[in-house]
Amino acid sequence: MSSAIRPVLIVAGVGSPSGTGAAAARLFAREGYRVALVARSAERLKITKDHINNTGGEAEAFSINDYEYSTITDLFSRVKSHTWPSPAKAEIRVAFWNASNAPFKTFLDITEEDIQETLQANVIAPFSFSRQAILNFKENEIDERGRRGTLIFTGATGSLRGNTYTSAFSAGKFGLRALSQSLAKEFGKDNIHVAQFIIDGMILSERTTEGKTLEELKDTRLNPESIAEAILYLTNQDKSAWTWELDLRPSHEKW
Amino acid sequence: MSSAIRPVLIVAGVGSPSGTGAAAARLFAREGYRVALVARSAERLKITKDHINNTGGEAEAFSINDYEYSTITDLFSRVKSHTWPSPAKAEIRVAFWNASNAPFKTFLDITEEDIQETLQANVIAPFSFSRQAILNFKENEIDERGRRGTLIFTGATGSLRGNTYTSAFSAGKFGLRALSQSLAKEFGKDNIHVAQFIIDGMILSERTTEGKTLEELKDTRLNPESIAEAILYLTNQDKSAWTWELDLRPSHEKW
Amino acid sequence: MSSAIRPVLIVAGVGSPSGTGAAAARLFAREGYRVALVARSAERLKITKDHINNTGGEAEAFSINDYEYSTITDLFSRVKSHTWPSPAKAEIRVAFWNASNAPFKTFLDITEEDIQETLQANVIAPFSFSRQAILNFKENEIDERGRRGTLIFTGATGSLRGNTYTSAFSAGKFGLRALSQSLAKEFGKDNIHVAQFIIDGMILSERTTEGKTLEELKDTRLNPESIAEAILYLTNQDKSAWTWELDLRPSHEKW
Amino acid sequence: MSSAIRPVLIVAGVGSPSGTGAAAARLFAREGYRVALVARSAERLKITKDHINNTGGEAEAFSINDYEYSTITDLFSRVKSHTWPSPAKAEIRVAFWNASNAPFKTFLDITEEDIQETLQANVIAPFSFSRQAILNFKENEIDERGRRGTLIFTGATGSLRGNTYTSAFSAGKFGLRALSQSLAKEFGKDNIHVAQFIIDGMILSERTTEGKTLEELKDTRLNPESIAEAILYLTNQDKSAWTWELDLRPSHEKW
Repeated sequence: MSSAIRPVLIVAGVGSPSGTGAAAARLFAREGYRVALVARSAERLKITKDHINNTGGEAEAFSINDYEYSTITDLFSRVKSHTWPSPAKAEIRVAFWNASNAPFKTFLDITEEDIQETLQANVIAPFSFSRQAILNFKENEIDERGRRGTLIFTGATGSLRGNTYTSAFSAGKFGLRALSQSLAKEFGKDNIHVAQFIIDGMILSERTTEGKTLEELKDTRLNPESIAEAILYLTNQDKSAWTWELDLRPSHEKW
Repeated sequence: MSSAIRPVLIVAGVGSPSGTGAAAARLFAREGYRVALVARSAERLKITKDHINNTGGEAEAFSINDYEYSTITDLFSRVKSHTWPSPAKAEIRVAFWNASNAPFKTFLDITEEDIQETLQANVIAPFSFSRQAILNFKENEIDERGRRGTLIFTGATGSLRGNTYTSAFSAGKFGLRALSQSLAKEFGKDNIHVAQFIIDGMILSERTTEGKTLEELKDTRLNPESIAEAILYLTNQDKSAWTWELDLRPSHEKW
Repeated sequence: MSSAIRPVLIVAGVGSPSGTGAAAARLFAREGYRVALVARSAERLKITKDHINNTGGEAEAFSINDYEYSTITDLFSRVKSHTWPSPAKAEIRVAFWNASNAPFKTFLDITEEDIQETLQANVIAPFSFSRQAILNFKENEIDERGRRGTLIFTGATGSLRGNTYTSAFSAGKFGLRALSQSLAKEFGKDNIHVAQFIIDGMILSERTTEGKTLEELKDTRLNPESIAEAILYLTNQDKSAWTWELDLRPSHEKW
Repeated sequence: MSSAIRPVLIVAGVGSPSGTGAAAARLFAREGYRVALVARSAERLKITKDHINNTGGEAEAFSINDYEYSTITDLFSRVKSHTWPSPAKAEIRVAFWNASNAPFKTFLDITEEDIQETLQANVIAPFSFSRQAILNFKENEIDERGRRGTLIFTGATGSLRGNTYTSAFSAGKFGLRALSQSLAKEFGKDNIHVAQFIIDGMILSERTTEGKTLEELKDTRLNPESIAEAILYLTNQDKSAWTWELDLRPSHEKW
């Protein structure tokens, strides 16, 4: 990429500052990306935005009210029309859908609203997000690693197996996995990389240490910073060897 | 089952009389089931209904206007309040979701409406259908093969792999597969059997013979009568050996 | 098939009379098949052979000393040169590989001999068995269901997932699954049906009833008679709708 | 790791200098690993060995005559007793099984010897290789990323799907995949990371350019240097987020 261009990461699903979305935002900011932070909570976005801007990066918060298809379409317009502090031209180069929303209930407790909200966040919004990302990527030049853009999704064990308590969640996550595989096959030839990772385990949170040290907890919990490194690795793969799906779990996880 | 009880098959997605839904309806009718035929086209339903009623069976048509969650809930009320010709008590024992609705388009041609309709027919309506089926099955006695009821879904190659042109279809079919697996795991202990089959190939239609005999065509096309036999086999498995997923393809299919 | 022809089932891995191999032998005998019983224990074979011959069927025992490739090749010669009691011509129409042999040990306890024996029984012998079955099937006429022959393998949960204690067993069973899939794809066009089923759970044995009735046990154990029915169903599928893989588990199995 | 320790990579299957094994050897050498190069061709090993030693690294060639279980056991003794040029203590920290050997033939052309050689290289030798690697790793201290050692296997599309012409190859590669999954589950709790990657496509070779530039070829061929980067990434994952399986394919690959 020309030095007059600065790449933008758009990351949707930036919840807790100790979550995966925020960790990815901070890591990509350190790597020189501008970061468009997206979530439904403006308050939470502010923490990550301020952190990045206070440590030499460029971040902007784009809160959304819902996961409507049109809301996501508008989101890209908002990001594209944003004026970033530094003068370089902005190009959306990486789009990361990390948002989810699903109940964990026995099947007979799942309501119509539950399943609709699950599909909205896990399938419909990602269709819109993917469409906008791909339309934007198609305008980009192919860079030195053979990429026009990278579209990444967060999956889970529930993306691969339905189970008791996960009928709604898995219906959404299976659907998202289908989308990511279809897109990987359709847009690879356009030098657009679509990938997803499968989180198989609980995320490390500094709030629930159960009397263990952080280091001990990493035996059984996924560190969001490590997940962020996986995302960066996927993003940086050159066009000759692209991964579609990568699983991640703590070393001591029983699976 | 007591001879004073006559089991009901409810089959949704009875399109062409030469399709899978109609073939299953006819086969189960011959096996002594009353059949509740469900589709969005009242006209098509009538052909299969008349055929069954004219050949010694009992069938009724229940047309629906859409795949709304509440429409499917109402459907079960309509089926349960129906008065069948013969005097035996009716029990819904088998529920078969064969309906689908999805566009085959390149990703960028898929509209918001496309994806919503696909999810409505392939995920939301099946959630409602499954809920009603299971609530009904739970009221049934365990029969001589250890069953309270059997819930069957139609899958496709697109249930297992996303591909170019199938992003919406596969999102729906992956979601449906997740539902069926979750339900199989959750309700097996209640002696409710949940299964799905995977259709890997084109269905035989007598209209498109391509100059071949029907017998020759069966090398490369799935005969709906044979699919119906698979459904009957799944239904009749005793509780000690239940199948969740079974693939079906023509002998000469390249896969 | 002409009435002057009587089909032969060759079943390898006929252990306990209360196992899957023996149950399949008895069921196919009742369906009119002659049965060639194969196992390494002549004593066990005799029980099943006598049962079939005493109940109107035709069975012969073919004991083998090992799972060497050449032993299996010879086996088919022995079966083909056997003179059956009734005058009809014999044709090997169904071949069922039910034999297995694997240690369940932690990885570091597995010896070179363990892994070699596992591969011998689960991969090398089945390659020989498949070769002979297919060469024989190719000589058969296509019958009224579009088949020249059916080759069936027994799989397990360990065919799909490696796990602690199953490194050798799964290496063998994964290998067998690969063989069965390759053969299904290569010989379908020759009207040869290759299938496998996945046993996910423990087999019912009348010896370990744990104080439960046989009927109660069927909630959590696979009845070999029901597995045999699955094999018969697979065998009888007509050429327009063939299954490659079918899972079987007890209704109350947690999976 | 203490600076008085220098890690060793043992890589088996170092064929062509333009292959994956050699690329991994060079990359790990640049990262500070000593490299034990293993293959059946002493001549080919020498090229990669000389390259590494001439560019500031430390490599030694260990040719083997066959893939016998005991040969692989001996191999580790040879590597451990080797005196490296620099004084730091050697620890085997990464073991990479990249060797394979399989015929691509129609099933009926596969001989007993073919299948035995395939299993020897793809299953039996890896069992021995894994055993020695794990026994060695267990002696290592846990390093700053939470690892005692990393064991990596090369897989292929044939690891996931059997196909025409691949019955032997897939039997071996499925078996290897089972081994890697079993080991990942069994030894994660000991901080030993077991992973495999799936190569889905043809490897880039500078000899067969088909009139295209190297850059163009990377659209449709896997660059071994990029595969090596994937191996390094897997090796460097910290214990909180380990990948078991990662697929790699060229951007324009149709899959």
